Amino acid sequence: MEMYTKAETLELRRKHIGPSCKVFFPKDPIKIVRAQGQYMFDENGEKYLDCVNNVAHVGHCHPDVIKAAVKQMELLNTNSRFLHDSLVQYAKRLTATLPEQLSVCYFVNSGSEANDLALRLARQYSGHQDVITLDHAYHGHVTSLIDISPYKFNQLGKDSKKEFVHVAPSPDTYRGKYREDHPDPGSAYADDVTKIIEEAHKNGRKIAAFIAESMQSCGGQVIPPAGYFQKVAESVHKAGGVFIADEVQVGFGRVAKCFWGFQLQGEDFVPDIVTMGKPIGNGHPMSCVVTTREIAEAFGASGLEYFNTFGGNPVSCAIGLAVLDIIEKEDLQGHASRVGNYLVQLLNEQKEKHPLVGDVRGVGLFVGVDLVKDRQKRTPATAEAQHIIYKLKEQRILLSADGPYRNILKFKPPMCFSMEDAKHVVNQIDEILTDLEEVTTSNIGNGLPTSTHCKRKTPTDGSNHESNSHINRNRCRQENGFCTEGHKVPCKRIRT
Amino acid sequence: MEMYTKAETLELRRKHIGPSCKVFFPKDPIKIVRAQGQYMFDENGEKYLDCVNNVAHVGHCHPDVIKAAVKQMELLNTNSRFLHDSLVQYAKRLTATLPEQLSVCYFVNSGSEANDLALRLARQYSGHQDVITLDHAYHGHVTSLIDISPYKFNQLGKDSKKEFVHVAPSPDTYRGKYREDHPDPGSAYADDVTKIIEEAHKNGRKIAAFIAESMQSCGGQVIPPAGYFQKVAESVHKAGGVFIADEVQVGFGRVAKCFWGFQLQGEDFVPDIVTMGKPIGNGHPMSCVVTTREIAEAFGASGLEYFNTFGGNPVSCAIGLAVLDIIEKEDLQGHASRVGNYLVQLLNEQKEKHPLVGDVRGVGLFVGVDLVKDRQKRTPATAEAQHIIYKLKEQRILLSADGPYRNILKFKPPMCFSMEDAKHVVNQIDEILTDLEEVTTSNIGNGLPTSTHCKRKTPTDGSNHESNSHINRNRCRQENGFCTEGHKVPCKRIRT
Repeated sequence: MEMYTKAETLELRRKHIGPSCKVFFPKDPIKIVRAQGQYMFDENGEKYLDCVNNVAHVGHCHPDVIKAAVKQMELLNTNSRFLHDSLVQYAKRLTATLPEQLSVCYFVNSGSEANDLALRLARQYSGHQDVITLDHAYHGHVTSLIDISPYKFNQLGKDSKKEFVHVAPSPDTYRGKYREDHPDPGSAYADDVTKIIEEAHKNGRKIAAFIAESMQSCGGQVIPPAGYFQKVAESVHKAGGVFIADEVQVGFGRVAKCFWGFQLQGEDFVPDIVTMGKPIGNGHPMSCVVTTREIAEAFGASGLEYFNTFGGNPVSCAIGLAVLDIIEKEDLQGHASRVGNYLVQLLNEQKEKHPLVGDVRGVGLFVGVDLVKDRQKRTPATAEAQHIIYKLKEQRILLSADGPYRNILKFKPPMCFSMEDAKHVVNQIDEILTDLEEVTTSNIGNGLPTSTHCKRKTPTDGSNHESNSHINRNRCRQENGFCTEGHKVPCKRIRT
Repeated sequence: MEMYTKAETLELRRKHIGPSCKVFFPKDPIKIVRAQGQYMFDENGEKYLDCVNNVAHVGHCHPDVIKAAVKQMELLNTNSRFLHDSLVQYAKRLTATLPEQLSVCYFVNSGSEANDLALRLARQYSGHQDVITLDHAYHGHVTSLIDISPYKFNQLGKDSKKEFVHVAPSPDTYRGKYREDHPDPGSAYADDVTKIIEEAHKNGRKIAAFIAESMQSCGGQVIPPAGYFQKVAESVHKAGGVFIADEVQVGFGRVAKCFWGFQLQGEDFVPDIVTMGKPIGNGHPMSCVVTTREIAEAFGASGLEYFNTFGGNPVSCAIGLAVLDIIEKEDLQGHASRVGNYLVQLLNEQKEKHPLVGDVRGVGLFVGVDLVKDRQKRTPATAEAQHIIYKLKEQRILLSADGPYRNILKFKPPMCFSMEDAKHVVNQIDEILTDLEEVTTSNIGNGLPTSTHCKRKTPTDGSNHESNSHINRNRCRQENGFCTEGHKVPCKRIRT
């Protein structure tokens, strides 16, 4: 039962919650009161199809997760300075999903805590300070991670990049420096990392770590080309640094054929540190860093204890175990494979039909649709993407748009997302695109403003892609896909 | 039911958990399988009295907390980009416990995330970078907080203090620079902060924040003298910085007569930012930063969104609300006052009786006992404190010793700790102290090694107190009270 009307909730939120904490669809935010599986329900009982909540990994309010949580909450919830079976059992189960050398866990509370600890491990092990990060990367909200997240620090104006941070191009073969027509984009992008290391060395700097999401999420659903991680790891290791694979967004079977995103690069690639988060506890605040014995021992050698008050508590571990059980029991990887393939197939049909669809890419239930105004120039269709998101909301479908130009439709639904759901959302997109294109062809130009009122500068042609990192310095950026400013829905204008 | 024997649990822990994550009593760690109220039970059903777990604030496994959690888990657990009543209701209730101007909340997952965000708020608001912290302070485990935690960075060798960090003396009137015989220790300690600011300004540096626990916990259960915070705040404000009160350890009614530790300084003191943690969710991973509208607006003005995946989710908020309800319904502040006063009274009787007890200080259920080898010189009785802790464990009582010399017995039990519990633990301490003193008086010296094998250097006389910060550079430090190295229990030697 509701305590407040939506207007009252909003009013209290304005009064008591920091204005930097944005809501989805700020002009008409959604109030959600319950959720089940891949569906969310608002205060009027309206049902929304959820294509965005990768945190509710095994489905909203999964009964097995609740059962495990309650059982443990009734028994014990304390810190990891006491011995407890669920802690070690969970560590055993979790490391069993990883290559053998990744055997030592640190349990923490969020992806941000995990990535921060990963940096601490890397620095202590290597004795170095510098970090190589990818353009458009987002690794978390604490100070040390804003520093290595171009997605964030580029918004803070020039000179916001610290000296110890080195930004490598995002290995995006659709929109990046080396594209699908390059004979070996993996090596080419990796060579750029090698050059960065050489340059750093020339300046007397030393590399502690290369960090990358196994697939960039906020950066635009980027799937790195084959061989890229192997070659980067080789260079980074030569420089005495470590490879950190950030699996916070993509881990736990989302990519279907593997349990971890980095495993898509092949069995010959093993990162030195893996960080986990969002889906790990189906919404329960928990996360983990896994590394090698060697790095863990080096970290321990400083003599500094690592204590995390809530990390690895019995309730979190019980929930983590339940999530692993459900993924297995419900064959969610197999399901993600089948539904993901179907979704990509349906979206590719849209690509045949609609010139706005520039690229469809995805593995499992991690799928991106790159919208373009011009297929040759690959000009990002930012306003169109925002329009689609808002129109889908009217149809009770929650989808987001992200990437440096906010023109990439981003699918990362709960893993129980079904064939019917895929069909339904693509049908709706089809209708919206058809409407959009009708307007476009019946007008000079495309009927949409060339830039949204967010004033995000978009490149006018595809050759501009190298300067991507310099165009993010406006205030309309946000973290996880939805435009967080008052977005002028362009549909009204289009339809007149 | 146990999955593993204690030996197996330990073996798996060695294999899969980072060696920097220490257990209590490393020579013979405790395996806890369940807990209720202020009691914990090991795998053999042995019952321990818990004097240390301030996180289990309203008592281990409180049924009302579980009920609230389950009810919400069954309905919805998602992020704060959707509107939800429990988020705003919790923010409303939480800010109602604070002075009026502290009205804006940011919900995060841990004390570390809270303190890191507090620094971000302070820096954005002030436009400055530098931080003044207290000697022996501990504010969290992420990179930015290790930097401002002498408790941690002093262990990393010299040059581990960053340039932007300024360490002020801990306002400890028993062991610090200005003591109980000083006419106005509050002003004297505050003047030291003013001098630090002046010195920083001379060097062209600017102060973003002064941060302090409202009462230092790891630093040695230090209760700052009256007027100290007011005067510090005045200086810090003059310098354009803000005052951050870290309530992670001491908040939520523990100090009995007030809900927040900083309120003990009087109604004329209001910090600019308050951070919360540990007890806030009775073990559930959650925390909060509360600040003024002005600071929140300045933070928002950067245009950077603040998004925390798990922070402020409906389950965390429901649990937070339940904790507030229980504190009120069970009059836990009144209870803490009665039991805390009784505990301090019993401990003061021990001070009359046992020369080892140098100082007893406390408010509510935040109590410290400073053990000394010599009352005149106030030489820390480190080995004796460790001995007591280990002997209490044999009696199934969990207590910790902390502070820069690890000689302070530290009481911070669940708030349901009873009169009988207080009587019981003090009786046991009495017996142990009596035994210790028998040995001491029947031997030349005190029968205990002058330093433990941890090789913590202890000052040989009380005049040495100014150099405290320089003697922490060994490896036997730990975070929350228990010696985390193999501690040679001296009792056997003493008794022969």
